[in-house]
This record gives sequence, structure tokens and C-alpha cells, in this order.
Amino acid sequence: MRQLDMLYEGKAKKVYMTDDPEVLIVEYKDDATAFNGEKRGTIVGKRAVNNRMTNYFMRLLEGCGIPTHYIEELSDTRTAVKRADIVPLEVIVRNLSAGSFAKRYGVAEGIVFKQPTVEYSYKDDSLGDPLLNTSHALALGLAVPEDLALIREYAAQINHFLKSTLSECGVTLVDFKVEFGKLTGGKIVLVDEISPDTCRFWDSKTGEKLDKDRFRLDLGNVEGAYAEMMKRLGI
Amino acid sequence: MRQLDMLYEGKAKKVYMTDDPEVLIVEYKDDATAFNGEKRGTIVGKRAVNNRMTNYFMRLLEGCGIPTHYIEELSDTRTAVKRADIVPLEVIVRNLSAGSFAKRYGVAEGIVFKQPTVEYSYKDDSLGDPLLNTSHALALGLAVPEDLALIREYAAQINHFLKSTLSECGVTLVDFKVEFGKLTGGKIVLVDEISPDTCRFWDSKTGEKLDKDRFRLDLGNVEGAYAEMMKRLGI
Repeated sequence: MRQLDMLYEGKAKKVYMTDDPEVLIVEYKDDATAFNGEKRGTIVGKRAVNNRMTNYFMRLLEGCGIPTHYIEELSDTRTAVKRADIVPLEVIVRNLSAGSFAKRYGVAEGIVFKQPTVEYSYKDDSLGDPLLNTSHALALGLAVPEDLALIREYAAQINHFLKSTLSECGVTLVDFKVEFGKLTGGKIVLVDEISPDTCRFWDSKTGEKLDKDRFRLDLGNVEGAYAEMMKRLGI
Repeated sequence: MRQLDMLYEGKAKKVYMTDDPEVLIVEYKDDATAFNGEKRGTIVGKRAVNNRMTNYFMRLLEGCGIPTHYIEELSDTRTAVKRADIVPLEVIVRNLSAGSFAKRYGVAEGIVFKQPTVEYSYKDDSLGDPLLNTSHALALGLAVPEDLALIREYAAQINHFLKSTLSECGVTLVDFKVEFGKLTGGKIVLVDEISPDTCRFWDSKTGEKLDKDRFRLDLGNVEGAYAEMMKRLGI
């Protein structure tokens, strides 16, 4: 497979076309942004962590019956994936209160929910990625009902799997964001990444944050936290 | 029934205790606020319109099998209602895009939805009444699953009834907000009001706004629109 022109550059990744129209190459970046792009910085080595951790989880999730866009890890920072039309929704699953949830509803961080919450936000930076529910997503024509039901089911399964896998490594999965896409032919697959950029990981004993909140909140030792997560997972 | 001390004063109503612990008296005010209290004014005669229109709809909805807190209209501006513990959710049903929906998702007003949207906002002025979904409401302990399911069902039935009743008067029901409460014993009932303050009414032919948006957007003839709605409904 031959890498061709860049198709798209996002905040944390570049995406390239290849000579196969159904295959793209994702290249991760060390660039970090937070608060809808207001805060910017660099996390040295993040690109390798996020690339390799994402691929690690995607391979395991495929084994659990969750279809993903993953094809092959090409290097520490580059991965071949199936081309998919992105469903313009961020799907956020929460097991404990934190981040925007705690702020939005005026509650403390760390409240353990009896049942996980699932929320969608509309992927649109100019609107600030606003929260929306199923009826809004359907009214705006962002997805059809069957796809939304499948996405919700996959999100719950991903949470179940990640939560138990991380628990064995002494890590509490607080919340995470996933995205989905549609392959040519219409199949819904997990896309984007599963990494300390897109999940909140807390040490199960000490509550220490092992994710991008160390960057967002200027807690220091950002690179150390990313490396610690790789170590815990044995990647 | 004897009116006793004031229990609570809201933006548009005062609520009084009575000598019956299960009965309250609601007194409507002409005060108008918008944009979470940022804009303030007076709509002369609004209190009689909102009191009488709310009672008119609540009596009809009771006939359709929707339980309400309504007991008896005491005067043009005062009504006896059953005491209820308020479920801290605003339930908003939308048939067309307008207001905060159009702004939040960056779409025009007037898009007709194939299916109505239903959304909740958390009744908390200090947080700006943030949007939430069913899983959030459950995680925050704002309601139990059975009550939320009933509230959603009632909201859909209320929309169905209001939409067809208003359509016969040449009025399009764009959207509305309702609230629910729990009587002693646990029964869920419709509370608050159904009026031009809490609904968007558009003339079906001309699209002219016949509701509080005339106040919010400084369109003039606010009192005239409220009076026109009373005339159309034959109240």
C-alpha cells in the first residue's frame, strides 16, 4: 500500500489517502488541545502511546464482536484503517462524574453512577460540540434510528469490556468518548481512538489521574501518566 | 378554603398555602423574564391570559386521561391546585425548529421534524437549566425510571392533543415546555402552566408569532398576541 496525499489534518491526527480507495493511513501527532481548542500544547511521545493503545484496544474489541476500522499498525505512529463516513456524533459513556458532566450539573467529581450514562454531542467545533439526545440526532438527520441503536449498543459493550480490562490493571475507567463511521456498504464500525486523550483513567487505589486531564488541569507529569498507562496495560 | 402565607414567589407566579395542607393557590403575575432572567419586563393582562388558558388546557387534558394538579379557577388570576413535589426537569417537546434548538445546533427556525423531539433540562437557574438526557436524570437521582417513562409518555400525549386542538384554530404548535410533580402518595401529575409564556404558537398561514417570542425578540404587540390566542381558542 502506498501513502498518497493528506486528506485531512485534525487536532491530534493526520489522515492520508492510499492507492486503495477503501484504505486510509492515520498518523498520530504529539499536539494536544483542550477546552475546544482554547488551550494548546505538546505531549512528547503521545503519538506513539495513542496509536499503539488504540490499536491494542481495537484488536481486542474486534475479538469481542465490535467491528472497527482497524487494519494494521504500520509503525509506532501510523496505522492503516478502513475508509468510513464519520457519523458526526461523539458518544460519551460515563461511569463516574467528572469533567463537563460535573461542571454542567454542578456536582462533585467521583460520584459512582448505578448505571453508566450515555450521551451524544454533535461534532461541530463552531457550535462547541453541543450535547444532543436521540430525538435531536434523528430530527437533524445525523443518523438513522437503526444506526443510532447499534451505536448505543456498541458503546455499552465497549464500556463493559474496557472497564473490566482496566480494572484488572488497577485503573478505574471514569468515562470515555468514541466515534463511529459507516463503511462503503453501510456497516457501522468504531473509528477514531481509545487513548488517554479520549478516556479518563484514575488509579483505582489513589485516584491519581492518568490521562489528558493532567494536561488540561496543569497537573504536571503528563508524559509519565501516558507511559504509566502503557506499562499497566502491558503494551 | 382560606389563603394563608406565601410559600414561594417565582418569575411569573406566586404560590400560597391554604388551610388544607394538600391544596395551594397559584396567583399569576404580569412580570415577564427571558434569557434566564437577563431580560425583564411587564406584559399587561398576561396573568389573566396565562391563568385562564392553563386551566382551559388542564381541564381538557384531564378529560384525555392526563392527570393534572388543577382543582378550581378561583378568579381571573388565581387557581387552586393540588400540592405536588416538583420533579426538577423541564420537559420540552418540539415539532419544528425554533429558539434554543435552532441556536444550539446552528439550524434555521421552522424546520418541520418528522417526529417530535423530547428533551429535558435540569431546573437550576444557577446552572442555566442545562440540557440532560434520561441517563443523566437517573444518574443525578432526579427521578426514578418508571416516573421518567410516564413523564415522557404524558409529554407525547399532551403534544398530540395540543397540536390538533391548536391546528383547528389556525395555530401551529412549534414547541412547548411542561413540568410534572408528584402528589402525596406518589402519583405523577402535570403542574405549572400551558400558555404563550411556555409554548411557541405560530399563525398557521402567516407564520406570525403569537407567544412570548414577541417579548423576547422585541417584536411589538405582545399583549395583542396573547389576546389573539384567547380569541382563537374561544376562551
